Amino acid sequence: MVHAILNGKVIKKEKAQIPIYHKGYFFDFAVYSSIKVLNGKIFFPKYHIQRLFQSAKMINLKHNFKIKEVLGWLEKLTKIDKLKNVLLRIVLVGDPDEQKNALLYIFPASELTFYPDEWYRKGVKVITFEGERFLPQAKTTNLLLNFLALEKAKKCNAFEALLIDRDGNIREGTRSNFFAIRENKIFTPPKEKVLGGITQKLIILATKGKFKVVYRDIALKDVKRKNYQECFIASTSINVMPINQIDNVYLRNSFQKTYEIQKLFKNYWQQKLK
Amino acid sequence: MVHAILNGKVIKKEKAQIPIYHKGYFFDFAVYSSIKVLNGKIFFPKYHIQRLFQSAKMINLKHNFKIKEVLGWLEKLTKIDKLKNVLLRIVLVGDPDEQKNALLYIFPASELTFYPDEWYRKGVKVITFEGERFLPQAKTTNLLLNFLALEKAKKCNAFEALLIDRDGNIREGTRSNFFAIRENKIFTPPKEKVLGGITQKLIILATKGKFKVVYRDIALKDVKRKNYQECFIASTSINVMPINQIDNVYLRNSFQKTYEIQKLFKNYWQQKLK
Repeated sequence: MVHAILNGKVIKKEKAQIPIYHKGYFFDFAVYSSIKVLNGKIFFPKYHIQRLFQSAKMINLKHNFKIKEVLGWLEKLTKIDKLKNVLLRIVLVGDPDEQKNALLYIFPASELTFYPDEWYRKGVKVITFEGERFLPQAKTTNLLLNFLALEKAKKCNAFEALLIDRDGNIREGTRSNFFAIRENKIFTPPKEKVLGGITQKLIILATKGKFKVVYRDIALKDVKRKNYQECFIASTSINVMPINQIDNVYLRNSFQKTYEIQKLFKNYWQQKLK
Repeated sequence: MVHAILNGKVIKKEKAQIPIYHKGYFFDFAVYSSIKVLNGKIFFPKYHIQRLFQSAKMINLKHNFKIKEVLGWLEKLTKIDKLKNVLLRIVLVGDPDEQKNALLYIFPASELTFYPDEWYRKGVKVITFEGERFLPQAKTTNLLLNFLALEKAKKCNAFEALLIDRDGNIREGTRSNFFAIRENKIFTPPKEKVLGGITQKLIILATKGKFKVVYRDIALKDVKRKNYQECFIASTSINVMPINQIDNVYLRNSFQKTYEIQKLFKNYWQQKLK
């Protein structure tokens, strides 16, 4: 993990800097994605780059980068440093004045985190945090809400914070999508209100024919009243993680349907990455 | 404008960089202020540093910097580069893991902008933009809303965008406070819903005894219906700027009360900076 890539050029990681007076980065005129490298294999990079470019479009961040070249840069960095289990980050920073000055950084953000098997069986505790992301469909660096919500979760010994909107609905985690299950239906919030996660997309593909996905508002109070059978969160780093407790409300600690989704998800990506 | 200061140390401006993988800056765990240097004199720096530290406290950004030393650094930078009419920026970046690693940058953001006298007499056009700042009382780098709103204003040949909240009230400009006048009352939104501007503070002090300041919600529709006599915005760079048009609604182009406030404000700071 000693290198990074800036606009296609391999540089030492410690040289991957940006001026503190750079207007694009200062004003959060920047989008990003976090991409898993698992056993040296990059996990669905094309989906990440596509979403990165969609996010850029949503905030009118113009640039001249091409999906194919960015794919190549991801591979290059992975090879050069023989990355094995790493979370890569791409950050695309716009220049408000001159589109050709956009900056695209790729760097190793951290070693990949592997959570205990027990958490995937028994579930984890999450808390709630009132707030709505600005432009929720875009993965921008406008991240203070997510940051403070996750800090609060850590203080409460919780794994994640769920963002609750003005109507009392669960939107998403600070770094994950939220799902609730009833019978053979997976409920998840309306597309226009949350970030379209890559793992969410993969789960939907993986469970096709077994579960029906329903996009709709999910009231926090309904989840706490156990109007849904099981709940889970999902993300690139987290995979499919069941929830056993929200705030001080205990939900359950056995998750038959979530286990099935975990299996379907794993089979799907293992098949695809072969 | 060739130098900057990082944690008290004078450095070349181009060395004022931050790693793209710095977690604090990436997650907007950072606060800032923009300070005017006018004819070589720093404009109320203590107020700016106090607010900077208050903002830091609101997001639980810990650091060991002292007001007095930061004041000294502002003076040092102004002297070294013989700054005359410049907008300085302080950015204080937190380290989520280690408070002693907080970074405090001071650098010249731009030459000071002087707007045409005519704008101060005839007023400027502003547009509206729906959105609420997260933690409005804290001046953080969570700035995408402000940025996109101001970009829209520029496209519309407007000087500023006013942020409109979910209830249809005017909150503040993207880089200014908003004020409406009726008789001898200056109305401005409730303190807990907006950033407490330094210029706002100075205006309130300057107009004491002449105008009464009332903090309350100001409905956009009331302003457009001309339920207020005059409106203006104010900030460190803008000073006291009357508004002649909001969106496509023409308001007026003569501003007796605003002119009076401009005068009181100018007298006040000239007196204080002597």
